[in-house]
Amino acid sequence: LPSRLPNVGTTIFTVMSRLAAEHGAINLSQGFPDFSPSPRLLERVTHHMAAGANQYPPMAGVASLREAIAEKVARLYLANYDPETEVTVTAGATQAIYTAIAACVRPGDEVIVFAPVYDSYVPGIELNGGHAVHAHLRFPEFKPDWDEVRALITPRTRMIIINSPHNPSGSVWSAADMAMLETLVRDTKIVVVSDEVYEHVVFDQQDGGSLRHESVTRYPGLRERSFVVSSFGKTYHVTGWKVAYCLAPRALMGEFRKAHQFIVFTVHHPAQLALADFMREHPEFADTLASFYQAKRDFFRQQLEGSRFVLLPCAGTYFQLATYAAISDEPDTSFVQRLTKQHGVAAIPVSAFNPDGDDQRVIRFCFAKNEATLAAAGERLRAL
Amino acid sequence: LPSRLPNVGTTIFTVMSRLAAEHGAINLSQGFPDFSPSPRLLERVTHHMAAGANQYPPMAGVASLREAIAEKVARLYLANYDPETEVTVTAGATQAIYTAIAACVRPGDEVIVFAPVYDSYVPGIELNGGHAVHAHLRFPEFKPDWDEVRALITPRTRMIIINSPHNPSGSVWSAADMAMLETLVRDTKIVVVSDEVYEHVVFDQQDGGSLRHESVTRYPGLRERSFVVSSFGKTYHVTGWKVAYCLAPRALMGEFRKAHQFIVFTVHHPAQLALADFMREHPEFADTLASFYQAKRDFFRQQLEGSRFVLLPCAGTYFQLATYAAISDEPDTSFVQRLTKQHGVAAIPVSAFNPDGDDQRVIRFCFAKNEATLAAAGERLRAL
Ligand SMILES: CSCCC(=O)C(=O)O
Ligand SMILES: CSCCC(=O)C(=O)O
Repeated sequence: LPSRLPNVGTTIFTVMSRLAAEHGAINLSQGFPDFSPSPRLLERVTHHMAAGANQYPPMAGVASLREAIAEKVARLYLANYDPETEVTVTAGATQAIYTAIAACVRPGDEVIVFAPVYDSYVPGIELNGGHAVHAHLRFPEFKPDWDEVRALITPRTRMIIINSPHNPSGSVWSAADMAMLETLVRDTKIVVVSDEVYEHVVFDQQDGGSLRHESVTRYPGLRERSFVVSSFGKTYHVTGWKVAYCLAPRALMGEFRKAHQFIVFTVHHPAQLALADFMREHPEFADTLASFYQAKRDFFRQQLEGSRFVLLPCAGTYFQLATYAAISDEPDTSFVQRLTKQHGVAAIPVSAFNPDGDDQRVIRFCFAKNEATLAAAGERLRAL
Repeated sequence: LPSRLPNVGTTIFTVMSRLAAEHGAINLSQGFPDFSPSPRLLERVTHHMAAGANQYPPMAGVASLREAIAEKVARLYLANYDPETEVTVTAGATQAIYTAIAACVRPGDEVIVFAPVYDSYVPGIELNGGHAVHAHLRFPEFKPDWDEVRALITPRTRMIIINSPHNPSGSVWSAADMAMLETLVRDTKIVVVSDEVYEHVVFDQQDGGSLRHESVTRYPGLRERSFVVSSFGKTYHVTGWKVAYCLAPRALMGEFRKAHQFIVFTVHHPAQLALADFMREHPEFADTLASFYQAKRDFFRQQLEGSRFVLLPCAGTYFQLATYAAISDEPDTSFVQRLTKQHGVAAIPVSAFNPDGDDQRVIRFCFAKNEATLAAAGERLRAL
């Protein structure tokens, strides 16, 4: 059988988490919390299972959750989405992004992505016969170069996939970036997929900072052509529940659902109801996430003071980039192996997000961890 | 945006369940139980959530569940699958089938399916650029015609998708059918996808009946080239949890996982652990399913005695076909609408499974329901 993904191995997240487990290393590689979700959220799952919500929910997701999503988006971004026709609950953000691609991209279509690029996008494009075209978020700023993007757009460009706050770099696009994108796609048939799973994790807003999450839902010229993806896993500390959502204007969502119903059909019923309850009971929860993770970012950065790692700025997400040129000149893929096996800390090599393997000797740490975990990792990392 | 699925509307299951809800009809359309799963299974979910299993499980599924699956398959079918490399947990059987297609089918490939055909297969093939080629399970026997299948095989045939026990007809393939298939694919590059979600629901085995579930795992010439799909939702009465699995030999499973990791990545963690516990504690549960559903089948058929519906044989699954020629000569799509709205019972029109819309005036009832539900439906159906 000739492979449909000849250039793809096992995802770096699985590779590094497995290596961490094998060597008993502190796992700062794959992005997930090592602390618990709210007990109330768990209690609601138990409640809804007992109440009988164990059979198929509606294909697009339970109504109460779609309504809670639409209310949140209206409150935060002043954008209106009809829960009935413009909101769909998905089995994680990966499935939402894959499904948006499957719904739109035909063989021969070009899709612009920004490298370093999250590892599911390009295989999703290729499985659907599309060609990924790479724009670059260049080290060490990781900002879009709009002249480059403009030059990459062709009549075959069907889609642009964006991701701010950006994984792995932690950079955050500005209002000016969004306005540039809005201008570039005007009068084209380009569809945008906006991966906003870290929408609630933008830092340094309190002291008059000008950064905020620039959701595409705020920009009418983008909203009309965008699939917007966010994740309950990332926001409510339940990455293992695999519940996320997609927003899109009605016609696009119609195409999305045609594919969704035959890719996965629907999503774990009790978890959907529990999340809906929790969102209504705790609408403020998402708003506290930025300061919650900012404290962790700051704590982790402190831990690395006095180490030979050089930390890059981190404006959002729960990932911290670090260069290790002062420690080693190994490629990042072998450095993270050695770091895991010999020093007991697992991280992600950023070259894994670069299709050409471009290696700036940068690795990514996940700081969505208890302080004790971060302190223990810090001690090991300072020893290098 | 030109649709990638121009011929597809909303799945018939969603259409009919929604119509049933709108009209307060007894919903015998979409296939799901109206009774509860074991309280012990729910308790295990609560346990594992409290114990902290709320973050990403391994990409291929938790080890204990993969091992439990392999043990079951070894016990029932004497087939060995390595849990590490040949078993993957999926977000429902729909996702498993879609992913097997995505992993193998390239633009221009032909895929043989058997009509009436479950409604997700053909769109899954088309999203991946393949062409569905229809063999026919002809009314009223719904048996494969192997001369027809042989004639449909061409050098472009990449895959054959089979489904026994068969939804919607309830027919069950014999050992002779499996041997025919094994012969036909020998020395070809054809991959088989075997949808065995009703593997535990084959009837009339007790009185020396010769029927049993002919899993492709029993046939070496098929096993070596097959993706085998089954569903925890169907077996443990939790269709809304969306947990299923896929078996395949190592090389095929490698390709499957390459796609799986970027389509959905992984599956609800606490549910996987709970199912693993339950399978170990109650290995006999699956074995009792046939007699459990046979009693329901017989009860439902009794209810329809004295009605003007003519019941077809039902050898497996939890679906009962019925013709209504004595009641009406309407097309089945309008008959089920009227049945739902005026008579308060929702069913599935079998023409929805026929791509050419071929309509034998047959509808499908789901009898995975409490006796009270089946009795109430029976009363309404006898009144027609
Ligand atoms: C789907 S596993 C990877 C989780 C994640 O988003 C990351 O680590 O970047
Ligand atoms: C995925 S919803 C449909 C459930 C089912 O298998 C059926 O009703 O045939």
